[in-house]
Amino acid sequence: MPRQLHLNAFLMNTGHHEASWRLPESDPYAHVELSHYVHLARTAERGAFDSLFLADGPQLWGDLAQRPAGSLEPLTLLTALATATEHIGLIATASTSYNSPYNLARKFASLDIISGGRAGWNIVTTAGAEAARNFGLDAEPAHAERYARAAEFLDVALKLWDSWEDDAIVADKAAGVWGDDRKIHPPRHRGTYFSVEGALNVPRSPQGYPLLVQAGSSEDGKVFAARYAEAVFTAQQTLADAQAFYADLKARTAAGGRDPDHIKVLPGIVPVIGSTEAEARAHERVLEDHIVYAHGVGRLESLLQLEPGTLELDAELPAVLPPEEAIEGAKSRYTLVVELARRERLTVRQLIGRLGGGRGHLTFAGTPEQVADTIETWFRQGAADGFNIMPAVLPSGLDAFVDHVVPILRARGLLRTGYGARTTLRERYGLPRPANQHVAPALATV
Amino acid sequence: MPRQLHLNAFLMNTGHHEASWRLPESDPYAHVELSHYVHLARTAERGAFDSLFLADGPQLWGDLAQRPAGSLEPLTLLTALATATEHIGLIATASTSYNSPYNLARKFASLDIISGGRAGWNIVTTAGAEAARNFGLDAEPAHAERYARAAEFLDVALKLWDSWEDDAIVADKAAGVWGDDRKIHPPRHRGTYFSVEGALNVPRSPQGYPLLVQAGSSEDGKVFAARYAEAVFTAQQTLADAQAFYADLKARTAAGGRDPDHIKVLPGIVPVIGSTEAEARAHERVLEDHIVYAHGVGRLESLLQLEPGTLELDAELPAVLPPEEAIEGAKSRYTLVVELARRERLTVRQLIGRLGGGRGHLTFAGTPEQVADTIETWFRQGAADGFNIMPAVLPSGLDAFVDHVVPILRARGLLRTGYGARTTLRERYGLPRPANQHVAPALATV
Repeated sequence: MPRQLHLNAFLMNTGHHEASWRLPESDPYAHVELSHYVHLARTAERGAFDSLFLADGPQLWGDLAQRPAGSLEPLTLLTALATATEHIGLIATASTSYNSPYNLARKFASLDIISGGRAGWNIVTTAGAEAARNFGLDAEPAHAERYARAAEFLDVALKLWDSWEDDAIVADKAAGVWGDDRKIHPPRHRGTYFSVEGALNVPRSPQGYPLLVQAGSSEDGKVFAARYAEAVFTAQQTLADAQAFYADLKARTAAGGRDPDHIKVLPGIVPVIGSTEAEARAHERVLEDHIVYAHGVGRLESLLQLEPGTLELDAELPAVLPPEEAIEGAKSRYTLVVELARRERLTVRQLIGRLGGGRGHLTFAGTPEQVADTIETWFRQGAADGFNIMPAVLPSGLDAFVDHVVPILRARGLLRTGYGARTTLRERYGLPRPANQHVAPALATV
Repeated sequence: MPRQLHLNAFLMNTGHHEASWRLPESDPYAHVELSHYVHLARTAERGAFDSLFLADGPQLWGDLAQRPAGSLEPLTLLTALATATEHIGLIATASTSYNSPYNLARKFASLDIISGGRAGWNIVTTAGAEAARNFGLDAEPAHAERYARAAEFLDVALKLWDSWEDDAIVADKAAGVWGDDRKIHPPRHRGTYFSVEGALNVPRSPQGYPLLVQAGSSEDGKVFAARYAEAVFTAQQTLADAQAFYADLKARTAAGGRDPDHIKVLPGIVPVIGSTEAEARAHERVLEDHIVYAHGVGRLESLLQLEPGTLELDAELPAVLPPEEAIEGAKSRYTLVVELARRERLTVRQLIGRLGGGRGHLTFAGTPEQVADTIETWFRQGAADGFNIMPAVLPSGLDAFVDHVVPILRARGLLRTGYGARTTLRERYGLPRPANQHVAPALATV
């Protein structure tokens, strides 16, 4: 079968543009309405997307005045969406810094069972002091320490997911033997960050464990992704940067002994679609006109670790900024934003306009053909295995993508027309079901 | 309106009798099948039960050989059931010892929103070293310390649920103001067990917060229940014991300044229903015949903190047993079991037979009229506000209860015929929606 795109719908209340909630069409309460998310999920399923994705951080973001804040907890919302859909994958973000492996492993195994093998976990280490202070810490753990904890978290979670062999349930009613205790393998883990003694209290799930997804593009993030991730969400502004990132990550994955085909690279794209290019640009301008720039300045100062009041709206960024090494938060986001501003010599106002659309992801206003062309170029030229579709406005932007871009991609043979016989998310990614670490591989027949 | 029963369906894989999975009718994989639980939930909703309830402990219980082990994580399963039902309450057990307030408060607020105000939290402190060892501890925290942590956990959770005023969302598109930051109240909590700085990232939910439920009947448990609980699940073997417990808990609640009507006492009952008394007893004997007694001895020795091999199947319990004060696990369960054995001079074999049916809850074999009579007697004679229905075999036991006992209770005016206009779980319990601690009560109109 020819290589085909993997598409993911990144759902976020009224859309990824920060001003989307102000449009007449938008429901400012969408962030807590199940019906809104059910509509989005079914639309993505109509487009035969591989998966839905929800971002997350265990804190209340920013100021309420600016834009919709608060949300339904992702695993809870995706569980509800599992029952409203049949095929589409369900990728929830969850933090390794602010969860216990036992609790989180249970929840993902349960979602994987309930959804028939459609669960995915976007593994994040969670930047920021705000989150840390909601969990008994005074400041965020250092970047490297967060990643060390994440690696141990994964090792423990994998032990828990493998703590039941697939055939541990015997169900011998006559003998009165329900399960085979020899097929239960308690982790007995004692590490730096975690001690977890006992087996999971959920049987091994359809996929063995959720699809492992990662989204940080820092050096620590790439090392982690090459070791564990099966899909990577990334923010890339140019084809050249995306190609370099793609080649680097595939090479690192191969160097670690994994098949580079078993890690799918999915840059984010914020399409703003119009029936003509002029109409698309007009949509984009309407959104920019609704940005409240004062809010954007504060957020940018926070990202760049500058004192409030440092930035001027109609000037460029200061010549001297902290180096990436000094950033303990979202390192790769920091570098992307600074490079974007420097490369295009953007004023702060222009930079906020660009970030308002996609927070550093590739924003692209155009006709359905133009969007399809960009996608095809990146896909064919070694920059992407697929895309994380981040509509500027929801639900209309996802409707437009599925109704107008998907048919073009299908006509070009780049996208499946339906889900077919592959039922789990990992099967759709062309990945084998992971073997249980306690079961010796079957001997090859001669 | 005359006082009416509150019924709760306690769901547990193939039923509450430990041998239920061995019956020909039972599905030994039911514990991980969503369709099994959807059927149970819809049956309970047909009976206009107030709520569904799932027990939980963050560990793999006992030996797999004995009976179905492992389960879907309760909040995950109840979220899926929320979308498969319309009216019934959804009460999930979750531990204050092995969760973070921020994570758990989010999940319950999310479930309450998704279900339209049907969430309940059965607050447990989780006995046992097995659970402790899954969360980095070597041994379980002492009983009193677990309850001290639980009280602080509740205080923090209530601060988080009240951190958004109900009208914090302004949604002023023209002015570009989404929310009112003055109506957000970060907890800024610094306590013995928890430090939680920031506001919850979920708006205040339909009920304000989930119905608070409690199930421990130790001294610490009753103090906690009188302070916080709106419903209490309890195991009572005799009418007199149940009356004493009921009177005590209502008096403690009133003494603490709360309306004693605002705490509902729901003893567990394990009905085994037959069209004649003889048929019901025959059902019960079939179940007893399927018990594997060797397993029961081990579990009983563990509960009584005896060395393995101490108990003899056809003798009574040893004359000398540890006092309740020495028990750091499930204190009230320990006392109930010892008193049951002493009062009825049961052999170990007989005791296991009695416990196999309901783990210390009232087991009752009889006709639908006899079951209804027992329920009515306890309800009218100051022993119960309703019952936690724990069918010995599922789904058949719940089907039988709803098809044959519910109509009798309705004919006697003891049970509602439908859900009516009250939509939230707390409304069905006749409780007011809790005020936000940051909002002054409205002045009374003159």
